[in-house]
Amino acid sequence: MIQKILEVIEAGQTFLIAAHESPDGDALASTLSLTLALEGQGKQVTAYNCDGVPGDYRFLPGCDKIVNDVAADSQFDVAFVLDAGELSRAGSWIKERCATLVNIDHHPHSEDFGDIYFVDDKASATGALIYRLIKAAGWPISEEIAINLYTAVLADTGSFRYSNADGEAFRVAGEMVDLGVDPWSISSGLYESQEEVRLRLLALALPTLRVAECGTFASIAVTLEMYEQTGATSEHTDRFVNYPRSIRGVEVAIFFRQIEAARFKVGFRSSGTVDVGALARELGGGGHHNAAGGMVDGTLAEAQNHVFTKVGRLLR
Amino acid sequence: MIQKILEVIEAGQTFLIAAHESPDGDALASTLSLTLALEGQGKQVTAYNCDGVPGDYRFLPGCDKIVNDVAADSQFDVAFVLDAGELSRAGSWIKERCATLVNIDHHPHSEDFGDIYFVDDKASATGALIYRLIKAAGWPISEEIAINLYTAVLADTGSFRYSNADGEAFRVAGEMVDLGVDPWSISSGLYESQEEVRLRLLALALPTLRVAECGTFASIAVTLEMYEQTGATSEHTDRFVNYPRSIRGVEVAIFFRQIEAARFKVGFRSSGTVDVGALARELGGGGHHNAAGGMVDGTLAEAQNHVFTKVGRLLR
Repeated sequence: MIQKILEVIEAGQTFLIAAHESPDGDALASTLSLTLALEGQGKQVTAYNCDGVPGDYRFLPGCDKIVNDVAADSQFDVAFVLDAGELSRAGSWIKERCATLVNIDHHPHSEDFGDIYFVDDKASATGALIYRLIKAAGWPISEEIAINLYTAVLADTGSFRYSNADGEAFRVAGEMVDLGVDPWSISSGLYESQEEVRLRLLALALPTLRVAECGTFASIAVTLEMYEQTGATSEHTDRFVNYPRSIRGVEVAIFFRQIEAARFKVGFRSSGTVDVGALARELGGGGHHNAAGGMVDGTLAEAQNHVFTKVGRLLR
Repeated sequence: MIQKILEVIEAGQTFLIAAHESPDGDALASTLSLTLALEGQGKQVTAYNCDGVPGDYRFLPGCDKIVNDVAADSQFDVAFVLDAGELSRAGSWIKERCATLVNIDHHPHSEDFGDIYFVDDKASATGALIYRLIKAAGWPISEEIAINLYTAVLADTGSFRYSNADGEAFRVAGEMVDLGVDPWSISSGLYESQEEVRLRLLALALPTLRVAECGTFASIAVTLEMYEQTGATSEHTDRFVNYPRSIRGVEVAIFFRQIEAARFKVGFRSSGTVDVGALARELGGGGHHNAAGGMVDGTLAEAQNHVFTKVGRLLR
């Protein structure tokens, strides 16, 4: 399959490279590493994402190349759709605008929409497939390409912590580090760059920690008063639920976030068998088995008592 | 140097393997990987750490082998002191109890206390040196050894995120994953499974956050009183320094840990150009460019003022 792709690259002159909407690190960095590699071969490349580049990823070399609009009359010799799962997540119109359509993906059951289907659902990231392509072609890997390939693999393996971080993921990362990538500059940009007010808010929220039912569930809360004291906003509460969740033995983690004087949003995370989706639906909300949310009226104490009774019943 | 080590291993029958006090993941996992490897060669090994095995690391295969006491009359053919920086951090008595003393370390300026000095301050972890030793010897790497080698490298590179995560670190990790290590089971055990008291301690420590010099450095502190209030111990402060470090713009993060009424251990992390190793040596301590520690006398306010003045001078 790689050989076929190299042939159409060799023969083509104009290329479109796209990835799925609401792009994550793998989608963007795969787009950019292939774009930079093809440009290095003297090709004319349009890098496209319907949602552009989110702020977190503005450090990716070449990200300014990504456009969120393509002229209606443009035609391409070859279009690559990366990491998309389905063509519609990248743009259904792409099929009509190219002579050859290539699907490169690692999603299981990725839709077979292309002329060439290079899908390996065992790969840790689509970036790992771009790496294989670049290596097979024997193209040089510049530091800019290296940063993108590294970031693609990093992002889709949860910083090399998920079970999909396979030997290839580590080897790709190691090679990119040898080529000049600094792991810290990337991970700190992506993961360790919070605003001081978020930590100040966390300092107020953590003392609200309640652990109940023999340690099987735990909660923390953020109140409107805490926003006032710190200057933080609800945006800064992202991932706060991970604190109660991180306690050994906790099966259900709960995050109470005050939105009105007597009203709380309640977020649930389950790390085990408890279906918090069902729980959230009882509270007029919804979600998945492992992550869900709903709404409760009352003071914090009332909201906690109401929710704790329900959760406690499930865990007993 | 590796050849010399393999010769004394070949010739010896009884071994002591020790690492620094208050052991971290690299110290413990290096101890265990070398212990298991030598046992695999039919050697008699005593694995020792004066502080035993902290709860967080009880998942390490073989950790029950580590004792915190060695009979006063015991003698060893060879003693390995790993990751210690100085012999006294592992136990000065070790020198008198062995025919051959081997220092394996990656700390810069590691004390030259042994008969054999295998120190590479470019190595990401002491575990990477144990890996080199095992590979040079051609010994098999069991899954138990693989988990330890993986954890050693993971722990000292901050989950492959620090700048010391070099190509070797990633390649060692990749090889261990190929040998059966599941990244998620280790990182979730290590980083997402804390005791409730640790979170209670964090709740008291976070309000001590100080951010200074236009946000370029930040500190938090843990006092003896906080231990009393929560039932936590110094063990639970592991990685607390990551909280000030996580603030956008912070170049030097500082963690003050009270050890006596008027005495603080001070841990430093640098994410940039500042050499906190040099800073720590000024305080009678030591460490690397990016991670180091020392000691300061006084109240918390006095210790903070003393350290902040020094750090401020470096950052201006």
